[in-house]
Amino acid sequence: MLNTRFILLVLGLLLIVEGVFMLLSAGVAALYNEFDLPYHLISSAICIVVGGGLGFSLLKSPKDIGKREGYLIVTLVWLVFSLFGLLPFWLSGAIPSFTDAFFETISGFTTTGSSILNDIEALPHGLLFWRSLIQWLGGMGIIVLSLAILPVLGVGGMQMFVAEVPGPVPDKLHPRIKETAKRLYGIYVLFTFVEAVLLYFGGMTPFDAICHSFTTMATGGYSTKQASIAYFASPFIQYVMIFFMFLAGANFTLSFAALKGRFSKVIKDEEFQSYFWLVIIVSLVVGGVLYYTGGSLGLEQSWRDGLFQVVSIITTTGYATADYLLWAPFLGVIIFLLMFFGGSAGSTGGGIKIVRIVLLMKNSYYELKRLVHPNAVIPVRYNTRAVSQGIITNVLAFIVIYMMIVGISMIIMSIMGFDLDTALGAVATSIGNIGPGLGDVGPASNFYQIPNFGKWFLSILMLIGRLEIFTVILIFSPYFWKE
Amino acid sequence: MLNTRFILLVLGLLLIVEGVFMLLSAGVAALYNEFDLPYHLISSAICIVVGGGLGFSLLKSPKDIGKREGYLIVTLVWLVFSLFGLLPFWLSGAIPSFTDAFFETISGFTTTGSSILNDIEALPHGLLFWRSLIQWLGGMGIIVLSLAILPVLGVGGMQMFVAEVPGPVPDKLHPRIKETAKRLYGIYVLFTFVEAVLLYFGGMTPFDAICHSFTTMATGGYSTKQASIAYFASPFIQYVMIFFMFLAGANFTLSFAALKGRFSKVIKDEEFQSYFWLVIIVSLVVGGVLYYTGGSLGLEQSWRDGLFQVVSIITTTGYATADYLLWAPFLGVIIFLLMFFGGSAGSTGGGIKIVRIVLLMKNSYYELKRLVHPNAVIPVRYNTRAVSQGIITNVLAFIVIYMMIVGISMIIMSIMGFDLDTALGAVATSIGNIGPGLGDVGPASNFYQIPNFGKWFLSILMLIGRLEIFTVILIFSPYFWKE
Repeated sequence: MLNTRFILLVLGLLLIVEGVFMLLSAGVAALYNEFDLPYHLISSAICIVVGGGLGFSLLKSPKDIGKREGYLIVTLVWLVFSLFGLLPFWLSGAIPSFTDAFFETISGFTTTGSSILNDIEALPHGLLFWRSLIQWLGGMGIIVLSLAILPVLGVGGMQMFVAEVPGPVPDKLHPRIKETAKRLYGIYVLFTFVEAVLLYFGGMTPFDAICHSFTTMATGGYSTKQASIAYFASPFIQYVMIFFMFLAGANFTLSFAALKGRFSKVIKDEEFQSYFWLVIIVSLVVGGVLYYTGGSLGLEQSWRDGLFQVVSIITTTGYATADYLLWAPFLGVIIFLLMFFGGSAGSTGGGIKIVRIVLLMKNSYYELKRLVHPNAVIPVRYNTRAVSQGIITNVLAFIVIYMMIVGISMIIMSIMGFDLDTALGAVATSIGNIGPGLGDVGPASNFYQIPNFGKWFLSILMLIGRLEIFTVILIFSPYFWKE
Repeated sequence: MLNTRFILLVLGLLLIVEGVFMLLSAGVAALYNEFDLPYHLISSAICIVVGGGLGFSLLKSPKDIGKREGYLIVTLVWLVFSLFGLLPFWLSGAIPSFTDAFFETISGFTTTGSSILNDIEALPHGLLFWRSLIQWLGGMGIIVLSLAILPVLGVGGMQMFVAEVPGPVPDKLHPRIKETAKRLYGIYVLFTFVEAVLLYFGGMTPFDAICHSFTTMATGGYSTKQASIAYFASPFIQYVMIFFMFLAGANFTLSFAALKGRFSKVIKDEEFQSYFWLVIIVSLVVGGVLYYTGGSLGLEQSWRDGLFQVVSIITTTGYATADYLLWAPFLGVIIFLLMFFGGSAGSTGGGIKIVRIVLLMKNSYYELKRLVHPNAVIPVRYNTRAVSQGIITNVLAFIVIYMMIVGISMIIMSIMGFDLDTALGAVATSIGNIGPGLGDVGPASNFYQIPNFGKWFLSILMLIGRLEIFTVILIFSPYFWKE
C-alpha cells in the first residue's frame, strides 16, 4: 500500500524549508525598505504553518518506503513548491494573475526561465531576489534528483551515467542520499559564491551579482534586467557567465573530481569530451558566420556573442546577449537544434542530455555493424564499460517519448492559433527547460501573450521535462497504481 | 570479395528493362504526333545499348552473391535508373538543366513527387506519360524491395513486419523473390487498371486516367495538371483517388489476403487497424475544423478536402486538392506531423511507416511497466507474436537516425538561406517521399527556386528515405567494406 503519510510528511518538512528561504527574500525587502516586505513574511508564515501542520500531525508515519513513494514525492515537491512559491508574487500584486504567478514560479523551480514579465526592473528587490532564489533552489533539487534519487529509481538510464557516485542500495531510498547530497551541495554553493564575487569585481552591484550567480548555477536564466545579459556589456562579466554556465551544464561529480585534483577523470569522460567539443565547434561556426554577416561586430564580439548564445542554449540557461531570431536563418536553425541537446547528466541543465545523444549515436553506428554481422553480439560501450541492452532501449524510448510529447504539444499550442515556429519554439524551450523560444516567444519577447490554458500547459511541460519525462508520466500509467 | 561482375550484370539487365519501358512513352508520343518522339527513341536506345553491353560482356559472372551485393544493387538501381531516366526530359530540352532533370526523375523513381516544373501542361504527352510511368516503376520496385529483398537483408525490422510473405532463405537472395514478386505485381497491375477505368468513367480522358492511376498506386503524386487534383473538381474522381491512395498505402500482402477472401486477416492486423483509425480520426478533425473555419465550404466538401489531404500526406502521395498552408495554423501543424508517419510496411508509401510508430509507442508504454517491475521480462507483442529485443533496438535506431538526418539536413538547407519552415518542410517531404512541403515549397509552389546544390542534396535525401535509410548509409560505413 502506498505510504501516503510519509509522502505528506516529506512534503510538509520541505514546505518548512521553503518558508525559511522566503525569510531570506524578506530580509532583502527589509534592506531595501520596499513595499513587498509583509508579503514575503505572510507567504513564509503560510508555508511554515501548513508544512508544520503536515509534519507534526504525521511524524509517527512508518519509514519503509519504496520506489512509488519516491516518484510521487519528486513530482509533488515541484508542484507544491511552485504553488506556495508563487505567494509573494501574487499576494503582493506584482503579478496579479494567479496563472501568471504560477507560470513564473514553476518556470523558476524547473530552472526554465521563461517569463511573463514585461517590465522586470519594476519589481521590488525582494521579489527579484525570490525570483532568482527559486531557480537556485530548483537547481539544488535537480542535483540531488539526478545524482542520488533517479539512479535508484532507474529512470532514463541514470543509474549508468552517474554510477561514479557511491550508489545507494536499490529499493531503499534513504541511506546514502544524504552523503552524496552534502558533497554536491558544497560544490554548488562554492561555485555560486565564486561567481558572485567575480561578477561583483566585474562591475555588477552585489545584488545583481548574487541574483545572477543564483540563476547561472541553476542554468535557470532569470535576469534582474529586462534586457537580460545584454544590459551588462562588459566582456569580463559575459565571459565569467559563460564559464559558470559551462560548469553548471557539466556533471557535478566531474567538478568534484577536478577539485580533488583528478583531472584525468574529467578529460577521459566521454560525455564531457562531447560536451566540450560540441560547444567549441558550434561556437566557432556561429561566431564565424556572425563575423562575416554581422557587419559592424568585431572579431572578439562575434566570437563572444556566438559562444554566449551557444552555451546559454545548450546548457538550457536561456540568458540572452543577442536576439538569435535576427541572425541569419542558418544560425537560427542551429540554435533551434541545440535546444534538443541539453546539458550533461548530473548537471542542472535540462533537455535530452549529451550522454543520451552520445549513446544513441553509438547505438545507431553499431546497428550498421549488426546489419553486416547479424549473429555477432556487439554491445555499446560508454566510458569503457559495456552498456546493457535494457539501458539502450530505455534511452531510445526516452528520446522517442520526448519527441512524441513535442509533436502532440505542438498540436495543442497550434489550436490556440500560434504558427508553427511559435508552437514548436514554445514547446521545445519548455520541455527542455531553456527559456526563450522561437517566433512570438523569442529572446526579445516573453510568454505574457499566451492564453491561460497555454500557460498551464507549458507549465506541465516544464515539469515533465525537468523530471526526466518518465518520473511524471509513470504516475499516470495504470502499472503504477496496481499493487 | 565483392561480386562486382554480378552487380554490373543486374544493372545492365535492368537498364534494358528501363529502355523497353521508354518505348511505351515513345508510343504515346507517336500517338499524339508530338516533337518529343525521337528523344524517347534515342533515350531508349542508349539504355538498351549500355545495358546490353554490360549484360553480355558479363554473362558468365559467378552467381553466388551475399548481402553486400544486395545492398549495392538496390542503391545503384535507383541511381542508375534516375541517371538514364532523365534522358527524355533533358535531351528533348523540355527540362534544359541537367540538375533539374535529375531531380524530377529521382523524385519520380523514389515516388516522392516533388517537381521543378512551373508549367506542367506545357509538356508533350509522351513526356508526361514517362513522368507518370517512372513513378509507377518506382512503386513496383519498392514493393519487391520491401516485401522480398529488405526482409532478407534485415533492414529496419522488415523481416518482422512482412513475415506473412513466404520468407526467402537468409543469405541467398535469389530463390523465392520471383514468386513473391509475381504475385504482388499482379495486384499492383490489377489495382492500377481498375483505378484507371474508374477515373475514366468519372470523366477523365483515358490519358489522364492512366497517368493518375500510375502515380496513385505508386503513392507518387505527379499529376498531368499544374493545379494537381484541384483541376478535377468531380467528387467521384476525388473519392476514387482517396480509395486507391489508401490501398496503395496499405500492406500489399493484406490486399492479397483480402482478394483471396481472408478478410479476418486484414481486420486483425495491428498496423492496418492503426492506419485505418488514424486516417478516420485525423480526417474528421481536419474536416470538422475546415467546416467551421472555411466559411463557404459545405459539409461534404470540408470532409472531402480534409480526407483527401490527410490520405495524400499520410500515404506520402502528395496530390493536392487544397493548399494546406492557407488553412488554420492548427491544421498546418497536423499535416506537418503526418509527414513523419508514412504508409504501412509493404506498401508503396514512404516515411517512417505506421508499424514502426506502433512498435515504438508500445515499447514506450512497456518501458513504464519495466520501471515498476525492473526484473520482469516484458516483451513487446505485435500481431500476437513477441518482438525480439534486436528488432526493437533496430526500429528505435531507425527513427533516431531518421530524426538526426532531418536535423542535419535542416542545417544544410538553411545555409542556402531558407527559413526554418521551408528548410524543415523541404527536408521532411524529401526524406518521407511525399512531395509538397512547407513555406516556399508548399503545395502551391515547387522546387524550381532551390539552388542546384540543394536539388542534389534533396535528391539524395529522397533516395535515403526511399531505401529505408540503412540500405544507403550502410554502404558508407567502414564495416560494409571490411572483408
